[in-house]
Amino acid sequence: MAGSYRVWTISDPGKNGTLQLESRQSVALGPADVRIRVHAAGLNRADILQRKGLYPAPPGAPADIPGLEYAGVVEAVGERVTQRRVGDRVMGLVGGGAYAEQVVVSERETIRIPDSLSDVEAAATAEAFLTAYRAIFLVGGLERGQWCLIRAATSGIGLAAMQLCRHFGCHSIGTGRSLERLQQVRDYGLDVLAVDGDGSLPELVREHTGDGAQVVLDLVGGGHLQDNLDSLRTEGTHVLVGIMAGPKDSINLAPVLFRRLNLRAMTMRSLPLERRIAMARLFEERLTEGFVSGALRPVVDSTLPFDKAPEAQALMESGKHAGKIVLAMNETD
Amino acid sequence: MAGSYRVWTISDPGKNGTLQLESRQSVALGPADVRIRVHAAGLNRADILQRKGLYPAPPGAPADIPGLEYAGVVEAVGERVTQRRVGDRVMGLVGGGAYAEQVVVSERETIRIPDSLSDVEAAATAEAFLTAYRAIFLVGGLERGQWCLIRAATSGIGLAAMQLCRHFGCHSIGTGRSLERLQQVRDYGLDVLAVDGDGSLPELVREHTGDGAQVVLDLVGGGHLQDNLDSLRTEGTHVLVGIMAGPKDSINLAPVLFRRLNLRAMTMRSLPLERRIAMARLFEERLTEGFVSGALRPVVDSTLPFDKAPEAQALMESGKHAGKIVLAMNETD
Repeated sequence: MAGSYRVWTISDPGKNGTLQLESRQSVALGPADVRIRVHAAGLNRADILQRKGLYPAPPGAPADIPGLEYAGVVEAVGERVTQRRVGDRVMGLVGGGAYAEQVVVSERETIRIPDSLSDVEAAATAEAFLTAYRAIFLVGGLERGQWCLIRAATSGIGLAAMQLCRHFGCHSIGTGRSLERLQQVRDYGLDVLAVDGDGSLPELVREHTGDGAQVVLDLVGGGHLQDNLDSLRTEGTHVLVGIMAGPKDSINLAPVLFRRLNLRAMTMRSLPLERRIAMARLFEERLTEGFVSGALRPVVDSTLPFDKAPEAQALMESGKHAGKIVLAMNETD
Repeated sequence: MAGSYRVWTISDPGKNGTLQLESRQSVALGPADVRIRVHAAGLNRADILQRKGLYPAPPGAPADIPGLEYAGVVEAVGERVTQRRVGDRVMGLVGGGAYAEQVVVSERETIRIPDSLSDVEAAATAEAFLTAYRAIFLVGGLERGQWCLIRAATSGIGLAAMQLCRHFGCHSIGTGRSLERLQQVRDYGLDVLAVDGDGSLPELVREHTGDGAQVVLDLVGGGHLQDNLDSLRTEGTHVLVGIMAGPKDSINLAPVLFRRLNLRAMTMRSLPLERRIAMARLFEERLTEGFVSGALRPVVDSTLPFDKAPEAQALMESGKHAGKIVLAMNETD
């Protein structure tokens, strides 16, 4: 049943490492665990930071195996498992370890794959959509009819965010470096396009929203903080989920205080089990229906074979993708 | 019953104004309102910013009368008032208008003055203690046994915060510019003193707390943000309630993201009626008992006659006070 399986490990965790393929022995199943044969694993920017030694794995996750999301099929269940059976198609988030042919997780943190999604699509879904949902609705407090500024809109999380905004009755403004790329993604749900450097972003935001955006979803970080804060309405929230442009910036605390702005940060990778379980349950209750109806759909830029993890990471670092990059096991390649 | 009363008005709201004493006609009482004969009014830094045209009054508050907190006695009640009677001693927060011999407010936003407090003490209580309570517990999420960094500890809000920390089973570290002034206030509840410029604050915080402070209560603002963020534990919250040292600072977003720190801002002055009412009810439910027992006590630095409002503001601007400055009406002076 178990046996050995292949994983990508980081040569030298904590330093600027390289990926290498290794063989591991399957671990024993706990009573509430399921073993999943991974069919596809989505890439995330955190994987690259982790390989470079800049972003150590959270407590409880394997320190040396990257990978935050998987899709596959249940191949064994612990003795007290009640909700999942061998053969079920499931996907989910992990704190690490998804660049692997197998993962062992608690049954409660798995998400049933909507029938409308292939394995590759499923592996491109959980991290982007749950990050975006949590950031804009749970952390940012976006409500029906309000505006979200998505920075940058062409990122995997940005593409999920604009779909969620439209699906839940909200409006979005998306920033990006090129008008052409923004036009390519606008049909996923962007109401307004904002090309970086084309005049004042806060003015543009106010022109469309009236009093400003309730939420700024920020994957870019350094260099834009003042524009982001100035684009918020009073008591709005800037949610930081990435710092692709670097970490350094300046800040004027006067508008923060007088307009009671919030700057919050979140990562999914750090979630402890009970909160990962809550997010998995939220997905099935709030999002599955949107994938079934076709209102929500993951955006896959590229699919590479599992053996090509280093090439997949190089593609992500090139910044030339729009949407998710997925590793697929041989049998589904 | 009503007649005329005296108020301090700002000569030229929106510009760098001066205070002048005027006479106003009493306004009609709404059915749920009470008219309060003000015996004392507490000063707040916002009053000075408002006079200078830097901090316009919130919607619904008088644009030209400063003053955020009063203590006095009910002298008339609207026809549907049920909880307050003529003669009741009450205090409370308003969005403006407390530099006056009368205020008219909803009965629900008044707070019964604990018998242990004089009028002057009561006028020094609501803003400091409710700001501190809301900042550290409601916004910051401080829990029993956790640590709060109070910056600066000798401010009126700082003095309230350290008492609340001790009263609710939490620990506090207070910063200040002089060891002598910190030593003068430590008995109100400070566990650790941190003199500005005496070595690394984050190191000192970690030495005492282990993993950092859950909350930084910040009245100082610009120039200290990095130290404040570095003093927080993972998922801790920096609560900005003042910017006495100015608004400009730099920020490194990497620790904000990777340690999931929160930067939040709040003011009491901007609270709409329903939230002021909630704070008044919270005071009676959570704080009154502490004032009755003596565990909590306002710290009054100076009491000046009502006629000396300009001098009182000058004293506050001098920064030489430790604790609240209160204007007292003639009859209680």
